[in-house]
This record gives sequence, structure tokens and C-alpha cells, in this order.
Amino acid sequence: MKLLPGLILGAVLASAAAPALAQPDSLAMMTGRLRDRAMSGSGAYDILESLTTEVGPRPAGSPAIARAKDWAIAKMTSLGFSNVHAEPFTIWAWFKGVETAEVTAPFPQPMVITGLGGSVATPPGGVEAEIVLFSTFDALVSAPANSLTGKIAVLTQRMGSNESATGYGTANRWRRRGASEAAKRGAVGFMLRSLATNTDRAPHSGAMNYEEGVAKIPAAALSSPDADQLERMARRGKPIRMKFTLLPTYLPEATTWNVVGEIPGRVTPDEVVLVSGHLDSWGLGTGAIDDGAGVAISLAAAHLAGERKPRRTIRMVMWGAEETDQAGEAYAKAHAADVSKIVIAGESDFGAQHVMYFQTPAGSQDLRMVQMLAEALKPLGVTYNREPSRFGGDDIGHLVPLGVPQLGMRQEGAHYFDIHHSAEDTLDKVDPAELDKATAAWTATIYALAESGVDFRKAAPAK
Amino acid sequence: MKLLPGLILGAVLASAAAPALAQPDSLAMMTGRLRDRAMSGSGAYDILESLTTEVGPRPAGSPAIARAKDWAIAKMTSLGFSNVHAEPFTIWAWFKGVETAEVTAPFPQPMVITGLGGSVATPPGGVEAEIVLFSTFDALVSAPANSLTGKIAVLTQRMGSNESATGYGTANRWRRRGASEAAKRGAVGFMLRSLATNTDRAPHSGAMNYEEGVAKIPAAALSSPDADQLERMARRGKPIRMKFTLLPTYLPEATTWNVVGEIPGRVTPDEVVLVSGHLDSWGLGTGAIDDGAGVAISLAAAHLAGERKPRRTIRMVMWGAEETDQAGEAYAKAHAADVSKIVIAGESDFGAQHVMYFQTPAGSQDLRMVQMLAEALKPLGVTYNREPSRFGGDDIGHLVPLGVPQLGMRQEGAHYFDIHHSAEDTLDKVDPAELDKATAAWTATIYALAESGVDFRKAAPAK
Repeated sequence: MKLLPGLILGAVLASAAAPALAQPDSLAMMTGRLRDRAMSGSGAYDILESLTTEVGPRPAGSPAIARAKDWAIAKMTSLGFSNVHAEPFTIWAWFKGVETAEVTAPFPQPMVITGLGGSVATPPGGVEAEIVLFSTFDALVSAPANSLTGKIAVLTQRMGSNESATGYGTANRWRRRGASEAAKRGAVGFMLRSLATNTDRAPHSGAMNYEEGVAKIPAAALSSPDADQLERMARRGKPIRMKFTLLPTYLPEATTWNVVGEIPGRVTPDEVVLVSGHLDSWGLGTGAIDDGAGVAISLAAAHLAGERKPRRTIRMVMWGAEETDQAGEAYAKAHAADVSKIVIAGESDFGAQHVMYFQTPAGSQDLRMVQMLAEALKPLGVTYNREPSRFGGDDIGHLVPLGVPQLGMRQEGAHYFDIHHSAEDTLDKVDPAELDKATAAWTATIYALAESGVDFRKAAPAK
Repeated sequence: MKLLPGLILGAVLASAAAPALAQPDSLAMMTGRLRDRAMSGSGAYDILESLTTEVGPRPAGSPAIARAKDWAIAKMTSLGFSNVHAEPFTIWAWFKGVETAEVTAPFPQPMVITGLGGSVATPPGGVEAEIVLFSTFDALVSAPANSLTGKIAVLTQRMGSNESATGYGTANRWRRRGASEAAKRGAVGFMLRSLATNTDRAPHSGAMNYEEGVAKIPAAALSSPDADQLERMARRGKPIRMKFTLLPTYLPEATTWNVVGEIPGRVTPDEVVLVSGHLDSWGLGTGAIDDGAGVAISLAAAHLAGERKPRRTIRMVMWGAEETDQAGEAYAKAHAADVSKIVIAGESDFGAQHVMYFQTPAGSQDLRMVQMLAEALKPLGVTYNREPSRFGGDDIGHLVPLGVPQLGMRQEGAHYFDIHHSAEDTLDKVDPAELDKATAAWTATIYALAESGVDFRKAAPAK
């Protein structure tokens, strides 16, 4: 919090005198005021504390997501949103059950694993087999046919660490595709090192997919220290046998909800600025950074911006099945006829740290409103990235084919994958000051977008 | 490793020219050389890597401790120790089984717990009851009779954080005594916040005791974030119900071993310098810092000091049941007739970091050998604490009533309780350079003690 007083003072002066703006106007002034209002206590932390405490883990399709939906309706109603409602849709759902693993030879000892989302179960007594270690995904996909027959394939490749999550983007396909690549070569099980940037004993999970026509084998993530341990054992040169048991529950049909609330536009209520986070979480933690933080940031920001009654409608959406990528599709399907009202959509889903930079749709880079916003966000350390935003989040990404312009708000995330999709995703990992700082950027941005008349569809150059 | 080259160079110069010593002699010179020898690669990390990889978790009384015993015999034999043997003794043993917990109302969600060592089992279906939170142990012991009838008592007091483990000394009795204090007041279960200095989701366990004549109720440790969560829930003011299941195994009689090896003294083999660490570990991690590190430090140091064939015998002991405090007692009982041969005993059991200071028995503070050793350890940043060492470790402490002088070697441990007795106690948490630094202090100390003729029993002033 040390930087805050100076930052706020500077920002207040800037918004009062607006020295950095060529043409000070009331939009710039109000945008700056709202930014500073959020910085001085946005309410986001209280929302996050409430969601993570009163609901806790909330996997899509579970009884907990129904409680989360009720929580969301109550919270938006209490904050004065209109048209608060839940939009149900049907999904497949997967919940972890018994999860055990051990090395049975030559160095018997327990291992810590967690199932990948969507994995089939092992037999009740588990699967036991010799393991084959692969230090890279490329090595696995280069392995000859039948080379893994009756074996458990274990991928120990480390996810790259960086601030912008490109390491995860690459590693994500190891988790998504690893089981089928192993199964094609005869494997009876697949494990991989957690896609994580630290060395906690907590395994990190996430959804996986089975390739059509390939045997479905059980798949799990090992904690990083356990993957290290297998590498050390393998260096001894003796065959290693493991046994693991996964007894998850798979529901081909379950219900979840996208929960929606609005601040009706003062002048053009049929023009909608959609902002969002996802309500569902992975089941291991309480979903504080993924994505309670995104819900809290976008909801607090929509509320603060909405208090100024901007011209356009602000629509807050809490997605009900981001983790299995079923929410955006359901929304796109249900709203195909009215998405044309959405002037721009944004999604906060990269943790609880400050915003590093923002992007706007193609063709809007030199608009006066965008430049004004860039100036207004500077006191928060947010830079403007002129690269057009073509994809703003996993859920709103499904609106791209329907022509919905995307807002890009990139948060700092150097430690995001220390915690992501593990039991460590709990409230204590969140810094309230950072959460306010992220919310301040969103508040200013939402207000500017909702008060301006910019048509991003028209701003976009023909391709 | 940045400090090392300069440190070693300075130390080599000091031991060659011994400018800091008033009367350079061969003992000082060799002590300094051995210190530097250890700093340049003591072999301790390889020992630790071997134990934690090839054996892993090794609770006393388990099949794993038998494998650890075999490992210890093979390792000491390969290092050239003589008289290598295992001394069996009978203990009670406790192994964790199923461990689950959840809040059932008003905010249903899973909690992360682990059983306290020695806890009775719950019924197979678990215990469900309203919880009563206590923010301090004093509040629990001040609660009136019958005030907890049918409830689960939950202690959320935070362990103090400090380098010298006095926070743990205080908090340890909460874990040891909490269940009986709760049961006296009618409770059907007891949980406490992990005795830990960080906020990982990993619960930290440890042994507990039941008071004679008091009902035995199941007892568990909550991870720190889960204790926080219960505090947040409690602030909502509604009754909280929890359900938990612990299905541990208790064996009234099991076998474990103290494993012993010696470097026979060159001149006075009947005078013994005993050094030690404990072979058993808590079951959740692989016992890297507790106490694989202590085994590795003392074994590598005994080996390096032993290569110089000092006057006295160096006896390495790996204790077989420190965690339940049954090893030192067994040794004292078995060796009552010959402990008079032990001129001094030391135990390394506080992690893998460097030694901060050392202490020697009463009356020895001004001995020339002790002053020489203090000088020899200065380049490692080790200071001499003139406070006499009256208790050198949990196991060798049992030799105090038999008159065995105690060596005190206090390691840095600011982060020891981030990891202690949790699943996080794995090899990746150990810095090889710090382990060498600790081993260097032990190597120099063991050599000086074994080569000198000091009789610490005579040095001690009459009381």
C-alpha cells in the first residue's frame, strides 16, 4: 500500500486539472475520478471474501455452483443491479473422487496426484504398471507405436515461467492431449508434472480431452516434487512400478448457470458493455484467484462505474462453466439473436494482481476516447498496447465468431501458476491493494466505454 | 553460492597461516582444513538425496523404517564405518489412514486436515458436530466444565514465528494437550490450526498425548488457510457444523531400530564422541529437512572428520523413533552400563540450513580447545554462545540424566516451520550450499572434540 497515497494524490490532481490531456473533458474527468474512487477501496475484496468463504469451491454442475448462483443473484441485487437473473444450461460435469498413487518398486512410497478433469476412472483397485518417463511432450509423441503397451506414461516436462501465461498456453496441450498420445502407443495410464511455476507439493489439475477413436485411459497430474522424485528414481536405472487409483464422477448431463445483472443505460440502454468473470472454479481450492478475483474485480468495477449512470447499459455476466469451456458457447447459442447489442465484451480471468496493459479492437487505436482512457490508466501503471484485441477471454472468445468486439485487459501473473488449479487457490493468496488496483483499471475502462458513443464494429477496418 | 569462493579462500588462508589464533597448533590447522574440505562439497546432499529418494517417508514402526535401517547400514558400511549395526527396540506406532473433513453448514465445503500422531480413530462414518472456535489455548483451558458437550473444539491460535523455534516450543503443548483439554469439557473432537509459519494448504501434524483418565477424542490439524476460513465463517455469526473422519492405524507394539556405526579412535577408542540425526520421519513428506538433513549432516561430518583418524571414537547414531520420542529412551536403557564412555553427544535435528551458534557443556567455556573451535567456526558465520548446553536434542536429551555431556549446535530455522511435519518436507526445499555449510561446522566440531583430550564431565563445575 506504500505507493497509494502519492498515487491517489497525483491522480486526483491529474483528474482535476487534467494536465496530461490535450482536451480535458468531462468524460476524462469522471474516468479519473472513478479510477481513484476504486483505488481508495473498491469493495472487490469484500465480494471475493464473501464468495470464497460462503460458497468455497464451486465446480460447474455441482451443488456448490447452485449455491454460487444464489450468492451471485443476491450479491448483484444488493448492489442495485437490474434484470438480475440466472440463465441455466446443460453441461457434462466431472468431480474428483478417491485419488491415490504410490511407487510400488523399487522404492515403495506414496505419491501425490490429482485427476485431470474429464479423466475416466481406474478400476476400483487401481492400475499398476511399469512407468516410462518422458522429459518432453515431443519425446512422447515421437515414441513408436506399441512402445508403451501395458505401461504408464509419465511426462515430467516443466512448464515455462513467465508473466504472460504463454508458458501455460504451450503446456496446456500436454495436459489436454497427453493421455490420448500415450494411449495410441499402448499406455494404460498417463501422468504429467503439474503445470505449475513453483515447487509446492500441491498437484495442479485442469481439464483434458480424449481423442476420438483412441482408448480412454486414466490421467492425473503429479505434484512437482513428486515428478522430481520420479526423475531421481529413474536415474538409478531400475524399472519403476507405480499404482494409482482415480474414482471420479462423470455426469453426462448437469445444470449450471450464467448469472447476469445490468445497470441500464441512461441514454442508449440497447447498447451493452458486457463485463465478466467466471463463477465456477476448479474444485481443489476455493477459487480465489481463479476466478473469484475476476468476478470480484468486474462486479465491483461494474458497480462503481454504474453508480455514475453512463449512457450505455453495463451488463455483468458471471460465467457458469469456464473450466470445462462450456459457458461461452451456451451464451452465444442463447443470445445469437441479440449479441449485436453488445458494443464490446471484457472478461477478467487472470488472477488478483494489477492490470499491466490493455488493448482495444482493431481500428480503435487512435480514437480520442481510447487515447483518453490510456491517459487515465497511466497513474495505475497500465500501458496501452496498440496490438488489436482479438480475443478477450475463454468465455467471451465464443462471441468473436458472432462479431462481438473484444476488450483486452492483461493482468500481471508471474505467480499465477504457483496457485492455479491447486488446493492453494485460497483467499490468503490475494493482496487487497492489488485487487483494488486491478478494479480501478476496470472501473475507469468500463465507465469510459459505457459513457462514450464509440462503435467498435464500425471502428474496425475492413479485412 | 555467491559467498562461497571468498569464504573458502579466506578460510584456507586462515587455516594455513592461522593469523587469528594466538597459538597456532596442528589441531587448529586440521580443524580449519576439515571445515574447508566440507565447504567445498561435503557429500551430505548426496546422502540426503539417496535417503529421501530411495526410502522416502519412513515413520517409526512401518515397513519403510525397516528399509531405512537397511539403507543406513549399507550407507555407513560403504563410507567405511566400523561396527555398523542396528539396535532393535519395541515401540507403539501410529500411521495415518483416511483423513477427510468438511463444513456441513452453513457454508458446505471440504476442509484439509491431517490426524495428530496418536489420535484415536473416528467412527468409520466420521464425527459430525457443531464447532466451537477458540482463538487462544488459554481460552480453551479457561472454558467451563461441560461447555463443549457434544461439540468439536477448534483452536485457531497462530504459532509465533521466529528463528529459534521457541514459538514451536510454546505451541507444541497446544497440539500435545489440546484434545484432552477439550475432552474434559465434553468435546467429541479437537482440531487446531497447523503449527506452521506460512500459509500453505498443507496441514502440519505431529504427535499428541492423551491425559490419563480423560476420554480419548479424535484430533487433527487444519491447514492454515482452512483455519482462516473457519474464522471468517464464524464472523458471520451462524452456528458452524463440521464432519471429519480419521481412520489411522495404531500398533501397540512395533519394531524400529537405532542404527549405529563407528570410526574407532586412534589412541583412546573407549572415549566416544556421539553424533546423530534421526532416521524416522513424519509420514507426510519424505523427511528431507526433518530429519534426513540431520542424518546427512552428521553422517557426512562424522565421515569427513573420521578420515583424519582422530584419537577418540566417533560414533554415528541414526535414531529410529524421534517423532514419537521413543528412541533416546530405548538407547539410554540399553546402554546404561556404557554411556560413561560417551565424552559428549550431539544431535542435528533442525533442518538443512547453516549453523548459527554452538554451545558446549558447563565449565568448558574457557578451555583452549573450545576457544580454538570458536575461532575455526567464525569463517562460517557461526558464533560461540557461552550459555552452557544442557540439552542437545530430543534423543540425546534422554542421556542427560545419565550424565552425558551435551553439544549444542543451533541451526538457522526461520523457514523450518513452513515445511516441518507436512507433505512439503521434500528434497527440493534443501539448498545444497547451506547443507554443506552446516556440515562444515559439524565436521570441524566433531574433529576437534574427537582429537582433543577434554573431559567435559570434569570440566563441569560442581553444582
